[in-house]
Amino acid sequence: MTITQLTERLVASYARLGGINHLDGKNLPSKRAIAAITIDLLRLLFPGFFDEKLVHSSEIKIETANRLHRLVGGLEDEVCKSLEYAPPADVPKKEIRKIARNRTIEFLNSLPRIRELLQTDTEAAYNGDPAALSVEEVIVSYPFIEAIAVQRLAHELYLLDIPLIPRIMTEWAHTRTGMDLHPGARIGPYFFVDHCTGTVVGETCQIGEHVKMYQGVGLVAKSLAAGQALRGLKRHPTIEDRVTIYAGATIMGGDTVVGEGSTIGANVFLTTSVPPYSLVIQEEAKVKVLSKKAREQAAMDFQI
Amino acid sequence: MTITQLTERLVASYARLGGINHLDGKNLPSKRAIAAITIDLLRLLFPGFFDEKLVHSSEIKIETANRLHRLVGGLEDEVCKSLEYAPPADVPKKEIRKIARNRTIEFLNSLPRIRELLQTDTEAAYNGDPAALSVEEVIVSYPFIEAIAVQRLAHELYLLDIPLIPRIMTEWAHTRTGMDLHPGARIGPYFFVDHCTGTVVGETCQIGEHVKMYQGVGLVAKSLAAGQALRGLKRHPTIEDRVTIYAGATIMGGDTVVGEGSTIGANVFLTTSVPPYSLVIQEEAKVKVLSKKAREQAAMDFQI
Amino acid sequence: MTITQLTERLVASYARLGGINHLDGKNLPSKRAIAAITIDLLRLLFPGFFDEKLVHSSEIKIETANRLHRLVGGLEDEVCKSLEYAPPADVPKKEIRKIARNRTIEFLNSLPRIRELLQTDTEAAYNGDPAALSVEEVIVSYPFIEAIAVQRLAHELYLLDIPLIPRIMTEWAHTRTGMDLHPGARIGPYFFVDHCTGTVVGETCQIGEHVKMYQGVGLVAKSLAAGQALRGLKRHPTIEDRVTIYAGATIMGGDTVVGEGSTIGANVFLTTSVPPYSLVIQEEAKVKVLSKKAREQAAMDFQI
Repeated sequence: MTITQLTERLVASYARLGGINHLDGKNLPSKRAIAAITIDLLRLLFPGFFDEKLVHSSEIKIETANRLHRLVGGLEDEVCKSLEYAPPADVPKKEIRKIARNRTIEFLNSLPRIRELLQTDTEAAYNGDPAALSVEEVIVSYPFIEAIAVQRLAHELYLLDIPLIPRIMTEWAHTRTGMDLHPGARIGPYFFVDHCTGTVVGETCQIGEHVKMYQGVGLVAKSLAAGQALRGLKRHPTIEDRVTIYAGATIMGGDTVVGEGSTIGANVFLTTSVPPYSLVIQEEAKVKVLSKKAREQAAMDFQI
Repeated sequence: MTITQLTERLVASYARLGGINHLDGKNLPSKRAIAAITIDLLRLLFPGFFDEKLVHSSEIKIETANRLHRLVGGLEDEVCKSLEYAPPADVPKKEIRKIARNRTIEFLNSLPRIRELLQTDTEAAYNGDPAALSVEEVIVSYPFIEAIAVQRLAHELYLLDIPLIPRIMTEWAHTRTGMDLHPGARIGPYFFVDHCTGTVVGETCQIGEHVKMYQGVGLVAKSLAAGQALRGLKRHPTIEDRVTIYAGATIMGGDTVVGEGSTIGANVFLTTSVPPYSLVIQEEAKVKVLSKKAREQAAMDFQI
Repeated sequence: MTITQLTERLVASYARLGGINHLDGKNLPSKRAIAAITIDLLRLLFPGFFDEKLVHSSEIKIETANRLHRLVGGLEDEVCKSLEYAPPADVPKKEIRKIARNRTIEFLNSLPRIRELLQTDTEAAYNGDPAALSVEEVIVSYPFIEAIAVQRLAHELYLLDIPLIPRIMTEWAHTRTGMDLHPGARIGPYFFVDHCTGTVVGETCQIGEHVKMYQGVGLVAKSLAAGQALRGLKRHPTIEDRVTIYAGATIMGGDTVVGEGSTIGANVFLTTSVPPYSLVIQEEAKVKVLSKKAREQAAMDFQI
């Protein structure tokens, strides 16, 4: 088997299986470009934290202007590609570049508002974790800050009806933090997720203020045969203010509402609403104390 | 304490603790080279998706030939290193390079077949997730596609008895996606894992068609004193066709079979087989509604 | 809206929301520099494993000396920055550089001791996992080895009262492995966590010898209103020798002690102590076998 033969077999499979090629199509947004843009946006949101050298306020204005200048063109190009990929209804093709520019500016204009939200999240993280020595430690080392900053950025692009880019941004953060916050989720201020890994927040979630969650929490949809037919419907739960959800709890369904001030214990699987101030926990686990020999046996087959 | 003294103490520890050095040994496959090879393989599997510039079908043949030419030499070198590290039985040392070349070609020859499987997985992901706007969005942004593509590649190398490389490939994907799919697992078509983070599929798992899973699902082995003595035995469960497994469920043991069409609820710990069309869920969690004061007390000690 | 206007609005927000800027402040340790230092430290701990070219013992002394020379200056700079950020009590500012140098040397001097611990962890990983073909495979491909090596390094810096750096190091490993081992945790020899993703070990945990855990295990603190007031108190559990903890189990609270030789089943939520040789598992999940039609209905609303 020669390279030429391998090439022919592969190219034949490209022709045969069209579904997973992207040939002659519209250019898709570049994951690499969007990663670089996201990093620049994080530096604009948290000035001085992610730069190698110390930033002085005397320089901050020129630094910020330069960073915005670098950013705006590249972001506009990616927005344009994603709008060409899925054009808004009744928009003439020649208008798309202009729409891309306007939405890019509108998005950048939301950065101060996003900063206000992120300051509440940072405060919640610091106050909520005795292991945190300072706000600086939270910002430089907590994966949560990166994950929520990217989600709040992506949420603005989502509200501006930019396709693909918001999801590429949150998946970039998902890879780095292990937390999958969908750009569509509506998340209130003073949000904190400790440890992050494995936590999932679905597209149509609504999360109130001062909500605290841990690793491995799922706010998810039921898996229904209907599948794509459900797009656009509210499929994910509503979490009211001041709710705490411990590690590994899964809360499912668009009609499920967790009332304010409730606590959900670890590894609970909740598929129905609970009233305010509920405490929801699993049955106590069985504890059996066995002889060393009996325990080894039991460890093998989990009989009691 | 000088650098010289630090050096001497460290070098002495290298001599004393041989187990975790790799000196004078055979050259091991390079993680960095294998990461680069894996990225090239993903581009061959999904042409046009991960390239910066748009690919036209007029160029695809020459692009593919060039990519294969670049790939084949480097891959053969790594395969050769891993075979020298653990030589096949009764193979003269001078034969190893030839065997490495043959297995490399045989592996590359499986790419069209792997693409057929990946098209079924992509279809399952798109159909199974109302949040997905298009097949393109699934391929460019879902970690699942990367994880399953790498596992299906690594599985072919595993079947060709190439040591080390398959596991290095799947651990590369594990780092990026949070999902640990062992190269040995036999996974049927139309597979989909939503969100991926924390999901583990063990070496001797058998998974049927149209199986849908979520984050944090473990298809794992019992932890037995026997340890290494169990190598080669079936230690992980069998999942039949059209099974759905919700987040955080752990299914354990080589004799455990989940019958076709079953649904396993979130956070279930299953160590025995269940018949077709089973619904397996935990006891409902206890819900107690408390006064605000009582709730805060309860949140502290989890008494009810 | 022009770039100039965007710049002014952002700079105004920097002035208004001081909490999440780092301007005119002390220089913080550089995440990028600490990542590079951590990689060099891993190469010193596992010589020959992460180098592209084969290392011969004839070269190892000079290689080690060169690596230490490269390392020591950069590490001392970062230690100095973090001590200037949070100076030790009653230390004159001009002493800080000297203290940084001494603690850096003291830290590097602990590497042989760390290697002794890592050899026990590597042995535990190899013996505990039948899927492991060799110790080499464990070291080159298991995320656990990287995670525990970084934690044992960071723990030494933590004991030397170096701020920020230990946490930046363990979060670097958290991003790569999905496992969040706090630098403060006291972890005995022969430790092994299989798969790693989602596992969290809190700051004040104490873990004995020969403890084996799986993905998604949380050794965590209760979430209390007290928050920062609890800093320094023991908030996380104690795990005695030869305990096995299966995937997704959450063990909570500073007074919680899991007695030696115990086994904790998957997805258990444990908030109280258990005596030696306990077996702790959830109630068996309910299994109901339904007609195909009934099952589809049930899958939608999880009624039984």
